[in-house]
Amino acid sequence: MQEQVVSYALEKVEKARQTLRALSSLKTSIKNNTLLRAAELLDKKRDYIKEENSKDIEYAKSLGLSSALIDRLLLNDKRIDGMIKVLEDVAKLPDPVGEIVRMWTLPNGLKVGRMRVPLGVVFIVYEARPNVTIEAASLCMKSSNAIILRGGKEAINSNRALVEVLKEACRMEGFPEDAIQFIDRPEREIVWEILKMEGKVDVAIPRGGESLIRAVAENARVPVIKHYKGVCNIYVDDEADLKKAYHIVYNAKVQRPSVCNAVENLIIHRNILESFWPRMAYILGKAGVELRCDEESLRIIKNNPRLSFVKAVPATEEDYYEEFLDLILAVKVVGSLEEAIDFIEKYGSKHSDAIITENYTKAMRFLQEVDSAAVYVNASTRFTDGNEFGLGAEMGISTDKIHARGPMALEELTITKFVILGEGQVRDNVGVPEDLLSEALQV
Amino acid sequence: MQEQVVSYALEKVEKARQTLRALSSLKTSIKNNTLLRAAELLDKKRDYIKEENSKDIEYAKSLGLSSALIDRLLLNDKRIDGMIKVLEDVAKLPDPVGEIVRMWTLPNGLKVGRMRVPLGVVFIVYEARPNVTIEAASLCMKSSNAIILRGGKEAINSNRALVEVLKEACRMEGFPEDAIQFIDRPEREIVWEILKMEGKVDVAIPRGGESLIRAVAENARVPVIKHYKGVCNIYVDDEADLKKAYHIVYNAKVQRPSVCNAVENLIIHRNILESFWPRMAYILGKAGVELRCDEESLRIIKNNPRLSFVKAVPATEEDYYEEFLDLILAVKVVGSLEEAIDFIEKYGSKHSDAIITENYTKAMRFLQEVDSAAVYVNASTRFTDGNEFGLGAEMGISTDKIHARGPMALEELTITKFVILGEGQVRDNVGVPEDLLSEALQV
Repeated sequence: MQEQVVSYALEKVEKARQTLRALSSLKTSIKNNTLLRAAELLDKKRDYIKEENSKDIEYAKSLGLSSALIDRLLLNDKRIDGMIKVLEDVAKLPDPVGEIVRMWTLPNGLKVGRMRVPLGVVFIVYEARPNVTIEAASLCMKSSNAIILRGGKEAINSNRALVEVLKEACRMEGFPEDAIQFIDRPEREIVWEILKMEGKVDVAIPRGGESLIRAVAENARVPVIKHYKGVCNIYVDDEADLKKAYHIVYNAKVQRPSVCNAVENLIIHRNILESFWPRMAYILGKAGVELRCDEESLRIIKNNPRLSFVKAVPATEEDYYEEFLDLILAVKVVGSLEEAIDFIEKYGSKHSDAIITENYTKAMRFLQEVDSAAVYVNASTRFTDGNEFGLGAEMGISTDKIHARGPMALEELTITKFVILGEGQVRDNVGVPEDLLSEALQV
Repeated sequence: MQEQVVSYALEKVEKARQTLRALSSLKTSIKNNTLLRAAELLDKKRDYIKEENSKDIEYAKSLGLSSALIDRLLLNDKRIDGMIKVLEDVAKLPDPVGEIVRMWTLPNGLKVGRMRVPLGVVFIVYEARPNVTIEAASLCMKSSNAIILRGGKEAINSNRALVEVLKEACRMEGFPEDAIQFIDRPEREIVWEILKMEGKVDVAIPRGGESLIRAVAENARVPVIKHYKGVCNIYVDDEADLKKAYHIVYNAKVQRPSVCNAVENLIIHRNILESFWPRMAYILGKAGVELRCDEESLRIIKNNPRLSFVKAVPATEEDYYEEFLDLILAVKVVGSLEEAIDFIEKYGSKHSDAIITENYTKAMRFLQEVDSAAVYVNASTRFTDGNEFGLGAEMGISTDKIHARGPMALEELTITKFVILGEGQVRDNVGVPEDLLSEALQV
């Protein structure tokens, strides 16, 4: 059994690897045509996709999974339209491969440049969201990477059907279809095996809940790019435009609380506690948000009879570390920008943090000193997303410091190599001595 | 004992970490002044440095270390001049921190940009080469990273003296001196401990022999950027300018055979075997190079009485994988560019590979398809080096695919974060509903 798993995993990886050379010099037009063909096939085969998806939905129901999870799993026409749009969007993006990002000339005439090249074999591990199959595969196809897809087992029929469509498009357009490998067996050991294949798998990208990501990171010998969780903070400075603050905090907490770029901690400058906080608390309370407050912010609510309807409780230390993913917000009062940055450094997860202020110097300091993947001035943290940022799609989000920070898209699926164009240059001018060369030419 | 090691390691790392915020907004002038001050102090304290170094040299002799190793350890005036020059050169390089590498505007008016920021805490593990202390520390100082230095124990007195000089310069110029941490105890366990501090150490960079690098990679939970070895290849195409080939192969093998960018495998197109190879073999033979040949290339030598002096033996399969680091060259005859690229893919180490050709199309194909950190046309592989490429200095070389490939310098010690400048934007235009806002303003 263990042996079977190893040989299955190895076969998938080797097959993917064998396509790398062909991928590296594949014409952009072939890549784009394949993506557009896949979009067309997806449109034609809606019924088949939905049929396969319904098997997954039934199975999920039989397991008694939550309705939220079943909703994420569901493929209806609107979601299929969304996947078609991703394929078309990625086809439109410029091809990153082969781009010379910079080239300079050395005093000896050597031209040294950096050329963008694919990473190689990308292993993506994700949960029961079939749309990730299309997003991840299309980005890898466009950036000439081979991809190994391992989705949640609850979505296995949907994912298999989507991969079939992609592969059919590959065959029609001359794209090496083995560049897309799909793990169609449920054993978790397959994942651990692939994560150990240093030198054969170039990077692993886990997408999903914190426990999945921790399991991947802990089992990997190959490089992993990841983010564990999103404990995002908004700091409302005493020089904030309060109207902007109401809208931004509301948006960041209420519009979609279940995602990683929603705000979890609200930090308020003491000077505006009386003017800003009762109104903000009123708005959040009306929106059904539970507030976990420090002493000062709690007192304001408890002392104001017009806020008696607001659900507000004292915050614990743990609350500030917590990714609620729900209509819950932790609140902290500070006396300065420094204190706010200290708070973010201590409790935040280096994902997305915002300052609301009209003060130029404080805005600049916040941008520079807050060490997070995305740092905002006067905007909602909810924008942290490959699509929103204009990157076309998203492979995942990184809060690591190596290779990529923030939403990852095409560029993050490449790396530059050095290319050097010479005309016979040798180091330190040490060539064959003249007399030795003339002797040699007599041989 | 184990506990002592852990607390020692933790203290070093925590001290380094505490400087990160101050480093992130340190003015470029302070960084440059500190580097220049260190250069000045190094010049003044030559005698002290050489004295401390002589303790290491004596100890190394008492251990019976090889003269090559003792030579690398030695600090004479010329080498101290070299370190002074590194400090001055790094001071002259542009500061990468805070650079906005790109900024664009979204349809909603949000400005999204990528800002270069330091990695954080960099852990460098190296062997008994004191110059690495200065190179690594100066690059980290300029890029606002904190550094933990762990050099070979044979160089401990030299390294300690160099670090003292750096710290004195820090104190004089207002640079946070704890940003430079020096491991002054010999236990290897300290290294393994630090390599496990995920989230506290942002990257580990091992520099040295393959066994050191493997040990670091295998023990690390933190990201590692590395290269194991340099099995560099030169392919002499049948459309090569043979004169260029003689000089380049000679330079790449003979000028300094003990380094990772020296050539180890020579690949020759069959069509020029008769014209090129006897002369090249003559030159290499005269330079004292031992040739490990495949059948065809060996026959040419054995059949030519004028080459009877050449040391040539049959190559084994292992020879082509080997990093000789010596006056030894493995030779292989191929029938096409494809075969040459296949050979490089199989036996090379993805470090530096060159083609010698006058044919444009073959040159372009080689550049695109050879998957190595540095790919050359008509130049010696010996140029793969941060200084030679014009990067100012070198933190190490990466043959990994993640974060950096090839020589690493200032830019590779940074990563970009997203900075977003708004004027109150909220996602999907979901702000506080108007009536709720008016109500709230009455509170």
